Amino acid sequence: MIVVLGGGPAGRLAAIRLASAGREVTLVEKGGIGGQCLHYGCMPVCAMNDVARHIQAAGLFSKLGILGKVPDLDFEALLREMAKVQETITDVLDKETRDAGVEILYGQEGRFDGREVIVGSESLKSEAVILSTGSRPALPDIDGIRNEGVFTPHSLKAMKSLPGRLVIIGGGIMAAEFAYIFSRFGSRVTVLSRSGFLKNLDETIRKRAVRELAGVEIREGTDVLAVGGSPENLKIPLKNGGKESVLACDAVLVAAGLTPNSGMLEGIPKRPNGEVIVDEYMQTTISGIYAAGDVTGPPFLTPVARLQGIVAADNILGARRKMDYSAIPQALNLGYELAFCSDNNPRSKPLVIPGVAGPGTFWAVPASDTGFAKILVAPDGTLSGMATASPGGGLIAGYMALLMKRHFLVHDFSDFIEVHPSTDGVYGLAKYASGVLKKHEKH
Amino acid sequence: MIVVLGGGPAGRLAAIRLASAGREVTLVEKGGIGGQCLHYGCMPVCAMNDVARHIQAAGLFSKLGILGKVPDLDFEALLREMAKVQETITDVLDKETRDAGVEILYGQEGRFDGREVIVGSESLKSEAVILSTGSRPALPDIDGIRNEGVFTPHSLKAMKSLPGRLVIIGGGIMAAEFAYIFSRFGSRVTVLSRSGFLKNLDETIRKRAVRELAGVEIREGTDVLAVGGSPENLKIPLKNGGKESVLACDAVLVAAGLTPNSGMLEGIPKRPNGEVIVDEYMQTTISGIYAAGDVTGPPFLTPVARLQGIVAADNILGARRKMDYSAIPQALNLGYELAFCSDNNPRSKPLVIPGVAGPGTFWAVPASDTGFAKILVAPDGTLSGMATASPGGGLIAGYMALLMKRHFLVHDFSDFIEVHPSTDGVYGLAKYASGVLKKHEKH
Repeated sequence: MIVVLGGGPAGRLAAIRLASAGREVTLVEKGGIGGQCLHYGCMPVCAMNDVARHIQAAGLFSKLGILGKVPDLDFEALLREMAKVQETITDVLDKETRDAGVEILYGQEGRFDGREVIVGSESLKSEAVILSTGSRPALPDIDGIRNEGVFTPHSLKAMKSLPGRLVIIGGGIMAAEFAYIFSRFGSRVTVLSRSGFLKNLDETIRKRAVRELAGVEIREGTDVLAVGGSPENLKIPLKNGGKESVLACDAVLVAAGLTPNSGMLEGIPKRPNGEVIVDEYMQTTISGIYAAGDVTGPPFLTPVARLQGIVAADNILGARRKMDYSAIPQALNLGYELAFCSDNNPRSKPLVIPGVAGPGTFWAVPASDTGFAKILVAPDGTLSGMATASPGGGLIAGYMALLMKRHFLVHDFSDFIEVHPSTDGVYGLAKYASGVLKKHEKH
Repeated sequence: MIVVLGGGPAGRLAAIRLASAGREVTLVEKGGIGGQCLHYGCMPVCAMNDVARHIQAAGLFSKLGILGKVPDLDFEALLREMAKVQETITDVLDKETRDAGVEILYGQEGRFDGREVIVGSESLKSEAVILSTGSRPALPDIDGIRNEGVFTPHSLKAMKSLPGRLVIIGGGIMAAEFAYIFSRFGSRVTVLSRSGFLKNLDETIRKRAVRELAGVEIREGTDVLAVGGSPENLKIPLKNGGKESVLACDAVLVAAGLTPNSGMLEGIPKRPNGEVIVDEYMQTTISGIYAAGDVTGPPFLTPVARLQGIVAADNILGARRKMDYSAIPQALNLGYELAFCSDNNPRSKPLVIPGVAGPGTFWAVPASDTGFAKILVAPDGTLSGMATASPGGGLIAGYMALLMKRHFLVHDFSDFIEVHPSTDGVYGLAKYASGVLKKHEKH
């Protein structure tokens, strides 16, 4: 038997892979299957973002006189209906996993003692183990951070009503996505970022994000000293550039990154921050003990966790498969999908154009707000990176990442035929770059 | 000098290609640049579809109690604002074309006499000519088809108000797209299709389209005998399976295909239906005289016309480049993008799954309406076709078509990393198919 500890994207996909290969697999999951992604992360953000985008479009159509007044949001109904859909998806995943032949042990948190997984008082004998216990929101070390009125994505569903004034602590992708959502819902949003807002992202993406977050107050270089006041009127003492002030708000959302869930994993090497150390085969330093997903540390992305789980499973099945981290596509979902992917070649040169008018951007033409497309091209013509802000940007980035992994040249796009109308400016830029490079070669 | 006759997608792209290569190019365009696509085809359909989808989503959110009442549509404002955006895009295309070095002759319809292009009384001397005069709506030979109250996509902007009862004549993609739009706008729509509705499409796509058009009455095998009555109350005598009846309506939209615009082209071989005959280099039977785009006949797709124009231009520049018609992706835009692409290998086997919950489909989960993904796999594992109904389906089909042209195997998707959450089920099916094929190989 093989034991998988944790039924998020990494553990669930690993378990299915092993069971499909005919192995006996037990998956230990304390809560609902699907992990943070389904219950507190990607899916709720997607659900709320769908509504936020709709409200934004309604505002645009109303302003143009095409549609009447923007309908009112019932925030409570949103949370209630969202939870129902999440339950449906949970049931689908549960069924899919069982149908593949996986046995699921629900309800108790398993732990690992360095040799085997223990659930309650029972040790699960196994030939191999995959540790996929995921991550949870990182809570900054601030007085009052667990006070009533302070939420994380994990406790968001307990929010009783839409806060008039919301403070978001964090400066990364998660903070930006929630800022967009609540701002479109009608909250006055202030983002408190300890260092630079979205500082690790491509500069074109970062600027676009700031543009889409017009109306959100973004305070960079800001230290939150504490969370005080009453749940009805929270007070947040701040420090910015040596200057102290106090911000009042109705709710705080902590979106300051993730931390691995590895307290229940003993007897294996971990980094000081709790990340389980694995090699490129997803194996820990103990033979037969693998780890996959967020518990092994960044990039904390569902598709990466899934692939890590599958790589771990394949190695248990004897494949000697390495995890490939090249060209990982990523996105930031605001009004458009701000998506990007790069091989980090420092010699590559950028090309940028405004976005194209098509499905979901036609009506953005009057405000010159059709997004953008960008590519990075290496001197030999290799497609080295891309970034875009467009509807479906994430889809584009996924396929572009695959083409980059296969070392596509910009010339390989010369006979690309798209579906029209398309909001994809990326392939068009590649065609253009191909023409420019060929011209240079002739001279 | 090189003369290009017609500034639609084929002619405009050809002219830019030639000018970018340093050639002197004159582009003759009687109306606005951008062709049927921008003025009467893809762009208006996209603009109206964006509003129709929004109204559909508003209805869903309202039904779930998340948002209030669906706002009212002002159809006149829609047409007015749409025309403004089209003007803006026309200006952008005009500037882009001139900036590339193309001289544009506006305002007069050019003609071709078998040797050169004549504009007014002036003959334009040239080394080479590209004929790209496009197409126009085909008008069925029916009494009263030019009566007041009967529209084509070319005259749609003259529609004074939203018709309560709209009859659409046609059974192809265009008819389906307009049926969706007007039905969501609130018209009672009847589609009169002479033979089978969407009969040439993939069966899964066809069924999905019919599902999305619930509420639209689709009458297959129906002959329209005439259009009579008054503009305020049109009467349409019909014949269906030998039975005659009369349908009353407020407006008729003819969306029954396209016919090449080649009346002004003389002295070159054409097919009886007016299509200009070209070889795979886009050259007519006369040396140096090329044709590209809809005037050469189906598939009547903007991206194909563009590539034909570029191929013609490249051949004028001496490249000996053939037009490649393999794996052309296509879409039907309803609530989702119903997109597809195939290499027509009869030995390929299909795999189908329901669509995935993600941006634009999360809230469709309660109604089990998340679309679908389908692939066709050849016995050797080659990806042979795909079809999907999902947001961004057209983007997926474009990239899948490129991968099919490059003879990708389903196994090539094993390390595909998507951007999550994604509504793309196609790559997932390819991964699954790869696993199944590998298992079979082992046995």
